[in-house]
Amino acid sequence: MTEALQPGSTIGILGGGQLGRMLSVAASRLGFKTHIFEPSANPPAGQVADQVTTAGYDDIDALKAFAASVDVITYEFENIPTAALDALEAAKPIRPNREALRVSQDRLVEKAFLRDLGLTTAPFAPVTDAASLEAAIAQVGTPAILKTCRFGYDGKGQARIMEPGDADAAFEAMQGADAVLEGFVTFTHEVSVIAARSVDGQVSCYDPGENVHKDGILDTTTVPARLMPARRMDAVLIAGKILNALDYVGVMGVELFVTPQALVVNEIAPRVHNSGHWTQNGCAVDQFEQHIRAVVGWPLGDGQRHADVVMENLIGADVDRLPELTKEPDCAIHMYGKAEAKPGRKMGHVNRITKAQAAQK
Amino acid sequence: MTEALQPGSTIGILGGGQLGRMLSVAASRLGFKTHIFEPSANPPAGQVADQVTTAGYDDIDALKAFAASVDVITYEFENIPTAALDALEAAKPIRPNREALRVSQDRLVEKAFLRDLGLTTAPFAPVTDAASLEAAIAQVGTPAILKTCRFGYDGKGQARIMEPGDADAAFEAMQGADAVLEGFVTFTHEVSVIAARSVDGQVSCYDPGENVHKDGILDTTTVPARLMPARRMDAVLIAGKILNALDYVGVMGVELFVTPQALVVNEIAPRVHNSGHWTQNGCAVDQFEQHIRAVVGWPLGDGQRHADVVMENLIGADVDRLPELTKEPDCAIHMYGKAEAKPGRKMGHVNRITKAQAAQK
Repeated sequence: MTEALQPGSTIGILGGGQLGRMLSVAASRLGFKTHIFEPSANPPAGQVADQVTTAGYDDIDALKAFAASVDVITYEFENIPTAALDALEAAKPIRPNREALRVSQDRLVEKAFLRDLGLTTAPFAPVTDAASLEAAIAQVGTPAILKTCRFGYDGKGQARIMEPGDADAAFEAMQGADAVLEGFVTFTHEVSVIAARSVDGQVSCYDPGENVHKDGILDTTTVPARLMPARRMDAVLIAGKILNALDYVGVMGVELFVTPQALVVNEIAPRVHNSGHWTQNGCAVDQFEQHIRAVVGWPLGDGQRHADVVMENLIGADVDRLPELTKEPDCAIHMYGKAEAKPGRKMGHVNRITKAQAAQK
Repeated sequence: MTEALQPGSTIGILGGGQLGRMLSVAASRLGFKTHIFEPSANPPAGQVADQVTTAGYDDIDALKAFAASVDVITYEFENIPTAALDALEAAKPIRPNREALRVSQDRLVEKAFLRDLGLTTAPFAPVTDAASLEAAIAQVGTPAILKTCRFGYDGKGQARIMEPGDADAAFEAMQGADAVLEGFVTFTHEVSVIAARSVDGQVSCYDPGENVHKDGILDTTTVPARLMPARRMDAVLIAGKILNALDYVGVMGVELFVTPQALVVNEIAPRVHNSGHWTQNGCAVDQFEQHIRAVVGWPLGDGQRHADVVMENLIGADVDRLPELTKEPDCAIHMYGKAEAKPGRKMGHVNRITKAQAAQK
């Protein structure tokens, strides 16, 4: 356990949403304190953290004070401004590292990184102006999706181009931002691998989950996913290749499209991932604790799946179903402590244990 | 869900130790905020709670302000002064109720309550002075244990009387406190039932666990306990009888001695209990969430056991084994965030999943 932090140390977490909240709880279970840095007041993670700093990512003094108060820094989202990272990194280690952020903050850089690793991605081409969009359509074909290179999530910052005539409207939708045109992938379903890598290079992957989206937002993740055994192994090997290439420390979500020919890497997220929430009720050590273990330099925990689980997100008015959900057997409720249920807002999730697995001992 | 509190409400918790800490985390999982009231500075529960009040139980103003800030009040320990309870109860409901506290705060009252319910207890007699001790020894016989009526825990406030000649020394050890003499019970092992009762009178018990103590402190709890099926049912019925008699709301720990003839009720604790920690990794809904569900007026959750588990307390220097424990498969670590490991101090526990159970569907 070289470099390992001891219980009682403080983990700084950038971002105070539900991921920061569940990371904070997992950290406390291992005896660590947490300090949340979040621009918005009263963040969900603040309710379960030892300290909260409310300040913007442009407040360098606040960032420095935050860094001085913690032993290691991690994050719940990838869009952290470079200047903020510079200020933080001068004081304390940031895990996962800057390279993981650099790659995942930009769709074009990410796609190129994955392609250069020899992995299969959707066909893609850069789009910076009308002329390059025309060239991109010629290269990638239609139908295709135009996506901003940065700051897109849950389907935001995207426009479909079903035929070349849609190009102008799609380009307008980018509002001048650099973009990437991605060819459609005809896939049967989407799976994701939640993978972890420790400081000393140990890699551990959770069993892939199968994701279903609704209105561009993750609706359910089901484990086990529909995958042939050889494909299941491929999925894990792909994730391992990505983590090793980045000298990654922490948990990463790797989204894969399943086609008859291949596993196509859709995108990577250098953090705990919504599609890994099932691990809270399916494994001895969940993705949040696994991330914390990696970040503090501990050995990775036991991520073996001991149950079949269906995770369902509670979005917006879904929380009105809470009275019924509390009466359901084998249904674990996870609420995020958010005050107001707005359309599209992730309010919580439930993990339904559909079958317990006998131990393989 | 009459009387049910909604997520976003605040639960006040008296006591900021590890039980308050794990209650706080469970409450957050259901979307509740917590406010900890604790005389000591920097309590373990404070690291994961929304608010902390540091004040004594004699600080009536602080108690009133605390009560005003919460929607319901619960507690992690039973020795709350009566005046404090009076001040709190005038403002907000206290769950479990005052009657449960009155009974469990005094060993003599508790023993009489259990006997009057028709349950089997160790033979006992009150001891207030040397003469009553002589009479008690005549009635109960030796060997016996003299215990203070109040404020005893983890073997403290107890003295053994192996023969009548030990009486004087045992009486001295009580330091003038009212006491109760309890006859020895020759038992094969100890089990405990973690039972819960909801606001509307629903009762749910976890599978009994088998407890092993070391130096007067719980060392391990193993589920399933060694109990014949009929005895297992008896244990649950005993717990249900106690909860119903007290119109109890919340989780209670009921310790039972197993003898060839009977289940002898040793003691009850009107709170989550160390011997119920295994539920964190053996059930969809653990004892902490079950207690919170009861206290906020929700239906009880699914307490069905889905794994065999051995809980082991980490006492004092046991935490030095943490590096090894982090490498163990099927071993879930729960640390309490205490700064210093003193002899006898509960620093954390581990739950080892020894066998997963196939679901009974």
